[in-house]
Amino acid sequence: MTHITLDDIEDLALGAVVLGTGGGGDPYVAKIMLQEAIEKHGPVEVVNAADLDPEGLLLPVAMVGAPTAIVEKFPNGGEAEKVLRALENHLGRTGIAVLPIENGGMNSLFPLVVAAELGLPCVDADSMRRAFPQIEMTLFTLAGISSSPMTMADAKGNYVLFETVDNLMGEKLVRSCVAQMGMIAVMSAYAITAAQCQEHAANGSLTYCLEIGRRVRAIQEGRPGAYEEFLSYCEAQILFTGKVADIERRTTGGWARGTVTLQHLEDPDRVMRVEIQNENLVAFEDGEAKVMVPDLITLIDIETGVPMTTEMLAYGQRLHVIAMPALDRWRTPEGLALAGPRAFGYDIDYAPIGGAQ
Amino acid sequence: MTHITLDDIEDLALGAVVLGTGGGGDPYVAKIMLQEAIEKHGPVEVVNAADLDPEGLLLPVAMVGAPTAIVEKFPNGGEAEKVLRALENHLGRTGIAVLPIENGGMNSLFPLVVAAELGLPCVDADSMRRAFPQIEMTLFTLAGISSSPMTMADAKGNYVLFETVDNLMGEKLVRSCVAQMGMIAVMSAYAITAAQCQEHAANGSLTYCLEIGRRVRAIQEGRPGAYEEFLSYCEAQILFTGKVADIERRTTGGWARGTVTLQHLEDPDRVMRVEIQNENLVAFEDGEAKVMVPDLITLIDIETGVPMTTEMLAYGQRLHVIAMPALDRWRTPEGLALAGPRAFGYDIDYAPIGGAQ
Repeated sequence: MTHITLDDIEDLALGAVVLGTGGGGDPYVAKIMLQEAIEKHGPVEVVNAADLDPEGLLLPVAMVGAPTAIVEKFPNGGEAEKVLRALENHLGRTGIAVLPIENGGMNSLFPLVVAAELGLPCVDADSMRRAFPQIEMTLFTLAGISSSPMTMADAKGNYVLFETVDNLMGEKLVRSCVAQMGMIAVMSAYAITAAQCQEHAANGSLTYCLEIGRRVRAIQEGRPGAYEEFLSYCEAQILFTGKVADIERRTTGGWARGTVTLQHLEDPDRVMRVEIQNENLVAFEDGEAKVMVPDLITLIDIETGVPMTTEMLAYGQRLHVIAMPALDRWRTPEGLALAGPRAFGYDIDYAPIGGAQ
Repeated sequence: MTHITLDDIEDLALGAVVLGTGGGGDPYVAKIMLQEAIEKHGPVEVVNAADLDPEGLLLPVAMVGAPTAIVEKFPNGGEAEKVLRALENHLGRTGIAVLPIENGGMNSLFPLVVAAELGLPCVDADSMRRAFPQIEMTLFTLAGISSSPMTMADAKGNYVLFETVDNLMGEKLVRSCVAQMGMIAVMSAYAITAAQCQEHAANGSLTYCLEIGRRVRAIQEGRPGAYEEFLSYCEAQILFTGKVADIERRTTGGWARGTVTLQHLEDPDRVMRVEIQNENLVAFEDGEAKVMVPDLITLIDIETGVPMTTEMLAYGQRLHVIAMPALDRWRTPEGLALAGPRAFGYDIDYAPIGGAQ
């Protein structure tokens, strides 16, 4: 893969919802933006960190806020240029490529829009290989890389630069500010070189996202063996198949929290409860956690093959609960300390689902 | 007055509590810091904006947070230099003098500490001539001057730069961040020239604070006619003299809120209720607002002559409720819209107390 073209957008968006694990917002608006950007600027060059000047500065970018707000008030395009130019000015250096911070939800597509508009390539990598609700939850934090300097801007023209002593403080300050910015802003953090990216990022994750999307589309098109092929590629499993019996949603402290309850299609006595904090965090059955962060929980409609964001969930939907292993680095003691169940307030020990460990 | 010496500190602190109208924290720690700074660096030169290069950049500085937290975790000195140097770097200019943002509470003394440490003069001016709980409540906002760029730092080494589209948004973002910084930080905002200061600031307010303090000390020393002299200088009046019958305090949304209830010493049926949001905002008697922001409400112990911060209030204290007029610019329709009772959520019309109007 050397370019993202118009033909890739739909597949990329499908993969983005899978890796979004419910969060990151519906990529619908991001798809339109990316389509417009590619029609205007041409296909977006995608590069491997290994093929770039090792000392070259990468420009990481992400949207931050509540997925529901992001869908309603999508960035107008100027914010990303503002945060990245401000970052370059602050560092006194010019970036050579855009780097996705988060590969999941709209943040899988948004950096490609930014790359198209800035005339830069986009690196085939990110710092999570999934969506996480907090910006310190990155492989870069695990590698001891500071998220600072961080820059942030909203559509109204407000701009903030942060230099924090640790990445959790960066998360706290960004989260506080985005709550004042109408729950949607564009940010940059973890400005690194191509060499650091090659060593510490989830390299190849854009390709991974696209390949997942292609397999989901095959399911949607009803191709024989498509589900097996999808599960095999993701090392995933169908954990539960049920009907949405209840959805509870609330927005607190800048988070979209909620719980979705599924009743098993074949055995109505079996009930699965998926708890949400922007992303699907833990799936419980009979009080026992069956899958949990950092592993991925993705809900897919059994009839249409549509992977679901939390906002799309509705009573009566019949869904597969898909469990996918996170990258191995997330499953180390350090990775679990940063983004395991206890990092989200669950007093449960991490138990991996099948797949790489 | 051309220098602030060790002999001025006590009087300055007394005036600072009067202008603090209950807020801004007990200047005790600030007094010690200023004493140390003057002992180390010598008296602090105080200058009038009119005597400076009109195009010279002033470096405004203030502490921000909850008064209670400020008392416990006073800035270590490095924060102010950090925010002012960062401001200079951002603007690409070097400042010629330190400018107090708020003259009231610890923020009356803190800029003098900063000036001593940076080897710069301090301007005899501020942007309020009293304490206000929000940083957009300045004469500079009334003059259409942006508070941005704003810089902010805490004792741990966290640093933030803000560029906001209006000063209220600046307040909101700073307030959000200070809540994450343990409720205490140092900030700069409203970087202006000496000419702008001369035109729009409360010029002479440092002298005003010192002169008030001298008159309060005369009260404390029991000099004949001292109370009359103090009231006359401030155009103030004793509104009520009572005993503290009840104090209610709570910290919500980054504010120290509360209500102090006083029972009249001579007529126990008379009760005055002073409502607090960091500062004393409105004094009610029989449900009627007798004094209200932007006019000043200061409580002074009738036996000792000690002006009280809200943290010093205790059951049984016998206090004068002193009402002082704000600067005329605060009493205009624009001033009242920014810092009158309705700006603090009180559905009452501003009624001036005696004095200049």
